[in-house]
Parts: sequence; structure tokens; C-alpha cells
Amino acid sequence: MAVGVTYPRGFKAAGATGGIKASGRPDVALVVADGPAAAAGVFTRSLAAGAPVRLCRERLAASATARAVVISSGNANVATGAQGRADAERMAALTGQLTGAGADVLVCSTGVIGVPLPMDRVEAGIYAAAGVLSPEGGDQASVAICTTDSHPKLATRTAEIDGREVRVGGMAKGAGMIRPDLGTMIAILTTDAGIAAHQLQPLLGAAAARSFNRITVDGSQSTSDSVIVLASGASGVAITEANCAAFSEALFGVCHDLALEIVADGEGARRIARYEVVGARSAADADRAARHVAEDQLVRCALYGADPNWGRIVAALGVCGVDLDTDRISIDLGGVPLVRDGIAVEGSATAAAEAAGAPQVDVRIDLRAGAESAVIYGSDLSTQYVLNNSEYTT
Amino acid sequence: MAVGVTYPRGFKAAGATGGIKASGRPDVALVVADGPAAAAGVFTRSLAAGAPVRLCRERLAASATARAVVISSGNANVATGAQGRADAERMAALTGQLTGAGADVLVCSTGVIGVPLPMDRVEAGIYAAAGVLSPEGGDQASVAICTTDSHPKLATRTAEIDGREVRVGGMAKGAGMIRPDLGTMIAILTTDAGIAAHQLQPLLGAAAARSFNRITVDGSQSTSDSVIVLASGASGVAITEANCAAFSEALFGVCHDLALEIVADGEGARRIARYEVVGARSAADADRAARHVAEDQLVRCALYGADPNWGRIVAALGVCGVDLDTDRISIDLGGVPLVRDGIAVEGSATAAAEAAGAPQVDVRIDLRAGAESAVIYGSDLSTQYVLNNSEYTT
Repeated sequence: MAVGVTYPRGFKAAGATGGIKASGRPDVALVVADGPAAAAGVFTRSLAAGAPVRLCRERLAASATARAVVISSGNANVATGAQGRADAERMAALTGQLTGAGADVLVCSTGVIGVPLPMDRVEAGIYAAAGVLSPEGGDQASVAICTTDSHPKLATRTAEIDGREVRVGGMAKGAGMIRPDLGTMIAILTTDAGIAAHQLQPLLGAAAARSFNRITVDGSQSTSDSVIVLASGASGVAITEANCAAFSEALFGVCHDLALEIVADGEGARRIARYEVVGARSAADADRAARHVAEDQLVRCALYGADPNWGRIVAALGVCGVDLDTDRISIDLGGVPLVRDGIAVEGSATAAAEAAGAPQVDVRIDLRAGAESAVIYGSDLSTQYVLNNSEYTT
Repeated sequence: MAVGVTYPRGFKAAGATGGIKASGRPDVALVVADGPAAAAGVFTRSLAAGAPVRLCRERLAASATARAVVISSGNANVATGAQGRADAERMAALTGQLTGAGADVLVCSTGVIGVPLPMDRVEAGIYAAAGVLSPEGGDQASVAICTTDSHPKLATRTAEIDGREVRVGGMAKGAGMIRPDLGTMIAILTTDAGIAAHQLQPLLGAAAARSFNRITVDGSQSTSDSVIVLASGASGVAITEANCAAFSEALFGVCHDLALEIVADGEGARRIARYEVVGARSAADADRAARHVAEDQLVRCALYGADPNWGRIVAALGVCGVDLDTDRISIDLGGVPLVRDGIAVEGSATAAAEAAGAPQVDVRIDLRAGAESAVIYGSDLSTQYVLNNSEYTT
């Protein structure tokens, strides 16, 4: 099907099994533009960034174009030293040779940290994927990039620009070590807009800041977070300052949908919460407070147990690093007024307990200190998360 | 028995049941000096600090003495507004009246946040405890301050000073929301040293910085962290600059023992880890790196699963906020060299897996960037922790 990265015109994609994953599931994906494509990317800020991230950064800085992206899953190629760098370059070279993309290739890897890539299997996967590249391959590719995700993540948007259709598509994977900062997990986006890389990069940065950077699963920032977008121009529509808004909104829409899919599919997640902090003195204060609450382990355990335990939210706010007066705070949960002036609203317990059991719980915190606000999406902390991450090296 | 807070001479203590806890377990403790006592305290830095913490701070700032401490467990009296303040004052007044301590009383409460204290039960507990005050009551008192602790926590030290015995004793409770910053949980210490409050306060601050502030269970700083010490002078030994070192070491020893008991009894903890970061550019860098690793959820899940998953340690270091080069890092686990120059040491997997199953796992991280170091003790993240904190409001 023409979904995800093959929804926009001018792209082929594929997924295949090279044998990197012990499970035998697909583990190599390719996304290839029919011709030269403008490219932009945002990446993890981690100082432990892996060889693929470093390679992408350097290539985008040098050329700002990319015809293909190769993604392997099951092994992150991080903390693998000089061998890791050589392996990432070999993945790019082989992909360029088999797809006609030449040196114009970006690389992503995701999975276990600290183990050298099994290059025979990675290469077998690249050969297999290159053999089945198709304009309908977006679906297969989205499966091949998953690790502990329970399902593949796809999103599309269409913008009507200058009377013509411009498409944006994307795929992403989670599901643990999710606390993006500037970059994120792995998400590959495509568009058939005609747009130069120097226009595309700031739009991608803005979209990521409003989407991937607004989610957190476990507060653990990954070494491999990467969001990459390729623009084929196949729509015949050139993006200009005048028509940029509609394209930007479509790009954000795809990022937003993928980001929410990632948090909802966080490892072991039973429900998600939308934490909105309003009434903050600055946007930075609002962001810090919302993030601190969303990442607090006790708040997340309460979310898992559908327990409207607002005392833990107040405790988290008290140490979030924002100068605030807890005696002024209001908290609403699922529209139920729970706290006013820092103390409990009488008679709200039953309604709040019901609201706390919803698949998405909306928590609104008013600091009553200013006019700025921020939203962070977070997931609960479940016994399944602990089991997922304690029983074997992932 | 003359243990814990009644090990030093000049103190009585008691524990009793007022009915605050639904379990019917003891929930009110008293520690009372036979005469006026110098007092010092360190408290949570949380802006959501509860009424008892605020009351203690004000009273110590005003007088620097205290003859009694009353501690209730099962309800923290936090986020309870003006009523909470009045309730804390009522606890102090009743205790002063029943024990002869007058206005010289400090107050601690621990338990659920955001629910008004059931004052009839708290008062019943104070009456009951005052009726059984005894020089052997340290044991009972240590039971009455527990919440989700699996066992009471006691420690003692004896210093030989100027040919005479000076005693220090203490009790503490954990077990969740443990990430002290300057103050900590609730710990009540006593000593029969003769020492003025202005001498005692800096010694307590230094001891807490090296003990309670070196532990973390869940990274969630409490609203009620309090460490209080009372000095009766009953040993007949006056602490001077000349003999201060031995006393200071005894005070630290009691703090250290209680801190390690708290982390080992962290909610759901199966094992603890001692994270030592060496080779840092500054002590602050070392502290930040050690703490970030100790609090990382994925590292803690691996500790639970006895999995020597060093890749997660490198990932945590990469985003800990310290400027470091992950390609230079060395990691040893239980004495087994696991990582050198940022990559795996071949052949170390089996020995490391064995070491990761010890009740205390020693992790040594060398940043190779300088000469400073820090130690943080942390616990694992278990399914039991999640169950403890999701099934009911605590």
C-alpha cells in the first residue's frame, strides 16, 4: 500500500529480514527517492550518540541531500568504537551501490547498545530489501524498523497548495529509552513537496519541537534518536514563503501523529497522560514543570493504577526546579477540579477516580504565576515495563 | 532496649497506636530529652514542604533547642493548607503539655499527601505514647515511624572522647519518594554529647551530605524529608574544637548506617548498587554523573534483572549533563573490567553476569577527564515497586 513513507510520490521502500534479530522478524528497511532529494534531520543531543547518528550529521552538513536511508533494527551500533563507524559506512556504501543512490545515503540503527553489528546479516538484509523495493513498500519498511514496539507506526497528511496536492508521510519506532531532546527515536518522513534543504531543516526542527520533543516514556534519552525527512519534489509544487504554512502544518501533523503513537506504545504502557501546565511565568518554566511531573516515577505508577493521586503531582512540582507557590496551584484531572489553592476540592474523589481510568488522562495544572503554558505527553510505569527491561539485555 | 534514640543517655522514647494507619500498626512516636537539649535539623528543599517541616524550620531558627520530637506516620500533613499548620501546632502543644517539654517541641509527619490529619486519632496516639515513655523505648519508637518500610531502622555509635564515652543513636524510615537533597526522609538522632546547637548544625549538615544525600531510591524527592538531632549533654563530655573529630565521625557513622538501611529497604528493592564515578573534572560532575546513572530507569531495571547491561550506563552518561567523552570511559562491575575506551572488554560477559547478581553491586565508572570522584547508592526498579505504588493512594 502507498502508506507511510511511500504515500508521497517519488519514493520506494522495502523491509526485509537479515537475521539481526533473534526473533527472525524483519530488521532492515530501505527508503529510496527516485531522484535527488533535499534532506534534513534532527538528532539526539546525547554525547554517547552512535556511529550512524554521527555519520548522518556529517553527511547532512556536507551536502543537505540524500537519496536513500537504510535502517537496521536489533542492534544500535552504539559504543562500538572505530569498528562501529566502519560498519555504518559499509551499510551506506552497499545501499548506495544497490539502489543507485551512490554516496547519497543516510544510516540509522536501533537496538542493543555496545555489541558490534553482525555485518554478514546486516548486508544480507540490505541485499534482500533492495531486491523488493516498491512504491507500495511503506508498510513493510515500517515493520522492519520496530524493536519492542507492539505495532508499526505510520502517519500521512495531505496539503492543498497552489491548487495541487502535496503529500507528507512518515514512519517511526519506539518504544523504550524515549525522552527525545531536539531529535528523537527513529522517524523517517518523506514528502513530494519541492523544497530546498535550507528551507526544510528549520521546518523539521519546529515540527519536532512541537511533537517528538513533547513526549516522554521513561525519561531515558536514547543514543540513536533520529528524525530524517526527504523531499522528492514529485508533486510539482515548489514550497515558497507564501505557501509554506500549509506544508509546515502537514509536516507537523505527521510528526504529531507518530509522536503520540510512540508514547501510547511505550514499553508496557496501559494508558497515557497529557500534562498541560498553564499559568507559568515562562514557557521554559511550564515545560520543566510538565516534564518533571510526566517523568516522576510515583506519578507514573499512580497513572498505571488509575489512581488520581494528586499529592504526588504536588510533590513533583515542589522539586521541579521552578520557583512556584504550591499553595496557589490548581489541578484538574479529566475535567474534574481536584485541587484549588493547593488543597483538595471536597467531593471530587469519585469523579476523579473514574477519569483516572481513561485510556488518555488529561491533567491540567495551573501555577497561577503567569501566562505561559506547555504540554507534555507521558505514559504510565507498569510492571510490564520492568519485566521488559530486566529479563534480558535489550 | 536502650537502642536507637535511647542508646545515648538522657532520653526517653515511645511508640503507640492512635489509629491513623488503617493497618492498626503503631503510628505515633515520641522522643523526649530529660532536660533542655541543643537541637539541629536539615530538611527537604521541596517548595511543597509540609506544615511539620515549616514548623520545625521556624522553631529551630528561633531557639535552636528542642526537648521533644513527635512523629506521626500514615499521613504526611502536606498540601493541607491552614488546617495543616494548625494541626501541626496542636501536635506540638499536646506533646509539650504531656511530656513537660512545653513549647520546646518539633513535629514530623509522614504518609499520604493531601489528606487532612485525623486529629482525634493523632491525639489518641500522643496520649498513648506519652503514657509509656521509657529510657528503653527506642525500639518501639522506631517501629511507629515506619510506613512502607519492611523493618525498622536503627543505628548507634560510641566515641571515646577525653577518656569518656559519648554515644550517638538514631532511627529512620524510608521507603519510597527517596531522593534527599540536603535533608532526607525522616531520621531522628540523639546524642549525650554536650554540644551547642551552633556547633551541632554544621556537623549534622556535613554528616547528612555524606550519607542521606548519597542515596536515591526513585529520584522522587519528598515533601517531608527531615533529619533532626537532639543533644542531651548527659555524657558529661563537652564537645570542643579539639575533640570534635571523634564526635563528628560517630554522628556520620549513624547517618551512614541509616542511609544504607533506607536504600536497601527501598520499596520493592531486591538489590542495591554502589555507583562510584572517578576521573571527573569536578566533584559536581562526578556527583551528577553517578546520580544520573543511579536514577536511570533502564539501568535500575537491568540491576533488578541482574543484567550487566553496560550499554544503558553509557547511554545515561551521554545525557547526564556532564561534558564527557564516551569513547574514553572505563566501567568495572563487581571488580570485573567490562568497558575500556568506551567499548566492551572481550570475554568479560560471564564474570560480569555473575557479579551483577550480588546483593550489592559495585559499579565503578572512570571518566578519565580529571581527578574528582563521587559515590551514590541506588536500588533496583522492581515490579514490586510498581505494584506498591499503583494499587492504592500512599
